[in-house]
Amino acid sequence: MKTAVYRRATFNAAHRLYNPKWDNVTNDKIFGLCNNPNYHGHNYILIVKLIGDIDPETGYVIDLKILKDLIKEEVIEPFDHNNLNLDVPEFKNLNPTAENIAKVIYEKLRSRLETKYDIQIRLYETENNFVEYPG
Amino acid sequence: MKTAVYRRATFNAAHRLYNPKWDNVTNDKIFGLCNNPNYHGHNYILIVKLIGDIDPETGYVIDLKILKDLIKEEVIEPFDHNNLNLDVPEFKNLNPTAENIAKVIYEKLRSRLETKYDIQIRLYETENNFVEYPG
Amino acid sequence: MKTAVYRRATFNAAHRLYNPKWDNVTNDKIFGLCNNPNYHGHNYILIVKLIGDIDPETGYVIDLKILKDLIKEEVIEPFDHNNLNLDVPEFKNLNPTAENIAKVIYEKLRSRLETKYDIQIRLYETENNFVEYPG
Amino acid sequence: MKTAVYRRATFNAAHRLYNPKWDNVTNDKIFGLCNNPNYHGHNYILIVKLIGDIDPETGYVIDLKILKDLIKEEVIEPFDHNNLNLDVPEFKNLNPTAENIAKVIYEKLRSRLETKYDIQIRLYETENNFVEYPG
Amino acid sequence: MKTAVYRRATFNAAHRLYNPKWDNVTNDKIFGLCNNPNYHGHNYILIVKLIGDIDPETGYVIDLKILKDLIKEEVIEPFDHNNLNLDVPEFKNLNPTAENIAKVIYEKLRSRLETKYDIQIRLYETENNFVEYPG
Amino acid sequence: MKTAVYRRATFNAAHRLYNPKWDNVTNDKIFGLCNNPNYHGHNYILIVKLIGDIDPETGYVIDLKILKDLIKEEVIEPFDHNNLNLDVPEFKNLNPTAENIAKVIYEKLRSRLETKYDIQIRLYETENNFVEYPG
Repeated sequence: MKTAVYRRATFNAAHRLYNPKWDNVTNDKIFGLCNNPNYHGHNYILIVKLIGDIDPETGYVIDLKILKDLIKEEVIEPFDHNNLNLDVPEFKNLNPTAENIAKVIYEKLRSRLETKYDIQIRLYETENNFVEYPG
Repeated sequence: MKTAVYRRATFNAAHRLYNPKWDNVTNDKIFGLCNNPNYHGHNYILIVKLIGDIDPETGYVIDLKILKDLIKEEVIEPFDHNNLNLDVPEFKNLNPTAENIAKVIYEKLRSRLETKYDIQIRLYETENNFVEYPG
Repeated sequence: MKTAVYRRATFNAAHRLYNPKWDNVTNDKIFGLCNNPNYHGHNYILIVKLIGDIDPETGYVIDLKILKDLIKEEVIEPFDHNNLNLDVPEFKNLNPTAENIAKVIYEKLRSRLETKYDIQIRLYETENNFVEYPG
Repeated sequence: MKTAVYRRATFNAAHRLYNPKWDNVTNDKIFGLCNNPNYHGHNYILIVKLIGDIDPETGYVIDLKILKDLIKEEVIEPFDHNNLNLDVPEFKNLNPTAENIAKVIYEKLRSRLETKYDIQIRLYETENNFVEYPG
Repeated sequence: MKTAVYRRATFNAAHRLYNPKWDNVTNDKIFGLCNNPNYHGHNYILIVKLIGDIDPETGYVIDLKILKDLIKEEVIEPFDHNNLNLDVPEFKNLNPTAENIAKVIYEKLRSRLETKYDIQIRLYETENNFVEYPG
Repeated sequence: MKTAVYRRATFNAAHRLYNPKWDNVTNDKIFGLCNNPNYHGHNYILIVKLIGDIDPETGYVIDLKILKDLIKEEVIEPFDHNNLNLDVPEFKNLNPTAENIAKVIYEKLRSRLETKYDIQIRLYETENNFVEYPG
């Protein structure tokens, strides 16, 4: 039977939510405080779920150190202590909502992992608001 | 691909577990301490999962403020600082177990949300006991 | 140097806050939703701090099993799954605020522990509201 | 609709990860610090998910006290404050990775529960590393 | 005996750490990633401790709703979803380290509370780094 | 006024509690399951509190990276994924109770930090049992 392993990591980043095609009034109406042009920020908590078979030689689905290092390379180093809108190329033309951040992380990790693994991304923006991609 | 968003909320309530069709001995045997006729209580933690598509204009599956306000109206205001057995009509003839509370919350929210969304309710009664509906 | 040991325990109880010498309007004004005559409830989290010297033979300040059993006897068994106002004698004439519950727990444990130990009680009523006695 | 109930429990154990068919260099390469021959240890957090129908008489999927006692008998008593490699027969010839521990717990509980229930095991080895079986 | 009550609140903000009197090389050396000129951010967790006597009429040291509203007015509304460096006047000429944020919060709340109360501020910048003022 | 900064870190270790001067019956009576000769283990959570003055140039009491690196060198590297009794010299003749582990950590860090700082060590052995030195 398939087994899932999970790896948790954190990054701290600034962001602003807005749609550049809309005027200020519409952006304020839709995004409220999240549309502050001076940015606000979060301690994001990322949980990567990876599903596969247990290797009978190691007892591992995957060596979590491999997943940890991949998360560090693809997510923590480019996102941590950065401004998602200004410093992260994937969000130059994509609104950095929790949903879109999770989707970007999924695509970055998916392209680096063998196809025998399924993955799913959970991202906590706050203790009360979080997302899962794919859900 | 479908994306899930989650919203967490809390309410503090009293309740008593028992089946009015049974005698006291049977209620005590099945429900133990939870059958105290003077009630006991919990800090319930509710997590609502809502599944849908990411809107390309907003980057949201749903504006979580809409979900927050709906949870407040349908769950927090009628349940919080109340006695579930005495103050909440849905439990007048339904035993307020965590399973039934989750089911009631599901039905209240389900009827208020567009059918394009799927939802699931997780309810923590304590840090050790929790439920999910549908599971 | 003095060393502190801590033991955490939980109990789930119903309560109501009010002053029987006041009329309903005053009680509602002061205690708000907490004055619901049908009661509400909480998952209380108790943390007992005990300060003393490390015994060189055991490496313990106190065997935490002794403190655990004392907490069970003096707090968990009389408070858990009960109505603090109706089922716990100490609150027959004392409003069961978090402050007063902590003070009652302090006095119950203080009288059972050797005077060479100092103790302090922390009590969480919710994740946002908690108290410490003595503070 | 199916409903899930969850029960959380904890145990503290020592373990060592290695494959007795491999030499030391290979074990060190694959398992790193986890291959310390003197063992290391964890506070494992176990969450058992059980899926079934809500009984209309009780409002329960299952009395969680039954699940709690079964977890105590099958997991906590044999695993807690033990060395998984030396003291737990299931790991005499099975590497006690989180994946394999979760699988062993699944099999032990599965054989004791009625077939009308589905179960799933989540096991936290640390706050950053955890697994789910089946996943 | 004195009793302490605690109130927890959260705010999400962007900030940048640097000393305008220093050159870039020195700021990078001292503040590292925290000196990103595009800002980064945090979910700050604030815990206000207030020490006083239990009022025998209410059983309260202070009505925590008063403290909650004061925290909202003095901290959450001016800080939440803002850029501490750009949007909060107190940090126009003060580096928004966790230490300085805690000190500013202390001074804002201290000036609004009766002198019979002592207060202390704990501020979590991340789950691993936090401060207390006065300590 | 003095300000406290806190740094949290974790390590996973095996240990056994016993007094070599006592016979087995006495060790079993005093230390119970913790006296398993095959060891058990924990995810220890360490919180170091350091008290000093806020430097007006940096806004820091101390650069937490310095404290983080010192904790890594003095605690995490020698303790993590080790057997405290067998692999850590300080416990060759000292029972590795939480109290004694906290005391050893205090002495190791105290000797490396300037005397202008006061420090205090909190160590969680489990979520229910923890200690503070000096207390």
